[in-house]
Amino acid sequence: METLETQTQVTLAGAGPGDPDLLTVAVLREMTCADVILHDTLVSAEVLALAGPQAKLIETGKTGFGPSMKQSDISDLIVRLAREGQRVLRLKSGDPGVFGRLGEELDALDAAGIAYRVLPGITAASAAAASLGQSLTERGRNRELRLLTGHDADGLAEQDWTALARPGAVAAIYMGKRAARYVQGRLMMHGASPATPACVVENASRADQVIRPATLATLPTVTAEAKGPAVILLGLAPRDARIALKEVAL
Amino acid sequence: METLETQTQVTLAGAGPGDPDLLTVAVLREMTCADVILHDTLVSAEVLALAGPQAKLIETGKTGFGPSMKQSDISDLIVRLAREGQRVLRLKSGDPGVFGRLGEELDALDAAGIAYRVLPGITAASAAAASLGQSLTERGRNRELRLLTGHDADGLAEQDWTALARPGAVAAIYMGKRAARYVQGRLMMHGASPATPACVVENASRADQVIRPATLATLPTVTAEAKGPAVILLGLAPRDARIALKEVAL
Repeated sequence: METLETQTQVTLAGAGPGDPDLLTVAVLREMTCADVILHDTLVSAEVLALAGPQAKLIETGKTGFGPSMKQSDISDLIVRLAREGQRVLRLKSGDPGVFGRLGEELDALDAAGIAYRVLPGITAASAAAASLGQSLTERGRNRELRLLTGHDADGLAEQDWTALARPGAVAAIYMGKRAARYVQGRLMMHGASPATPACVVENASRADQVIRPATLATLPTVTAEAKGPAVILLGLAPRDARIALKEVAL
Repeated sequence: METLETQTQVTLAGAGPGDPDLLTVAVLREMTCADVILHDTLVSAEVLALAGPQAKLIETGKTGFGPSMKQSDISDLIVRLAREGQRVLRLKSGDPGVFGRLGEELDALDAAGIAYRVLPGITAASAAAASLGQSLTERGRNRELRLLTGHDADGLAEQDWTALARPGAVAAIYMGKRAARYVQGRLMMHGASPATPACVVENASRADQVIRPATLATLPTVTAEAKGPAVILLGLAPRDARIALKEVAL
């Protein structure tokens, strides 16, 4: 990746799920060098505190102080800043390639003829499973892991419920708070046991992380308790029952 | 995660796909503190070079200098070293929760009553997609990403080929070199177009990374050209055709 660096004007990078210790070395270095950092709302304050003193921070999310920015506004701004000769870091929560709308920004950069590089980040599913002491895949249980989104214009209608309902299936649902009841209904209709383990990890990796164990039967109720961003892990329970009990008691 | 650190004897961590810049800050810090680092064969020399001077490096892979270690030998060794009071880092390539056999080692630690923490890592699919300038998910194309293994005792027999054969489906196949022809056959039998884009990323993120564009029709041939560890991306082509042409010309 270093070979591209000299001609790169824009870096599109993943900040991971929130714990600054889960930044990669490459992203941390770019944060110290960038002139301007355009970051999503979900990028944590602890991560942003690591930006160099010269870096101008621009929040692009819809819950920021300014008026909400459309995706096309964000893309236009990245292009304009790069054309001004600024070293631009586009910082996305998690991994930019996983439900990060990366493609739309790369299209704009390609159209403008601006060089870029993409730096991956730790995605929420990896951090959440690590915090459970669980493996996302395990011999004899699942040979496949699915990352799904619960927050899409068309909903989750076309998922492969038959496969997801099989014992041992593991999936991570991003932005799934509103989809939990729908997912529950479809899975049970396709034969999943109400006792299927599940878990809702809120603010994964952060100091305010909450692990909420569930079953398929309780998933909508448990999910509704999550206030912050949450990833739903289907098919996984916390390994350490003590963690589970502690968190349930909160 | 810091709260656990004082009582933690063993850290099980992901080293990412090979580029030391893709280590997380947490793993880099642990590498400088650990007394002993048990690492997989796939952990790169560039990453291992960052270990502290006091760290004893033990390679656990099957292609190491010593006799190959069984999984149970590795687990026993981790337990023994921790009981000796050593600060143990178990370093796995990629993310420990993705095809990393993490569960078997956690079982051994649980049975021995030894405290541990798990640190996630960048998984090969994220790094490979970033190097293609591609997003693993994209609105209007795929709402789901699958991580599959091509290297399992039972093969890939039970995958959901119908869903994978749909236009726009995206999957990453780990350890898929020997499975490429089988995957091709099953997907085409289920209606996938021979022109479906695919890509083989060898040594993802490393200095010797090779991006090998393919179609479903050419996948087995292209995969067979890969010498190093490779991840197969189904449904994704390199964004930058210039990269593709350069790599094809090698």
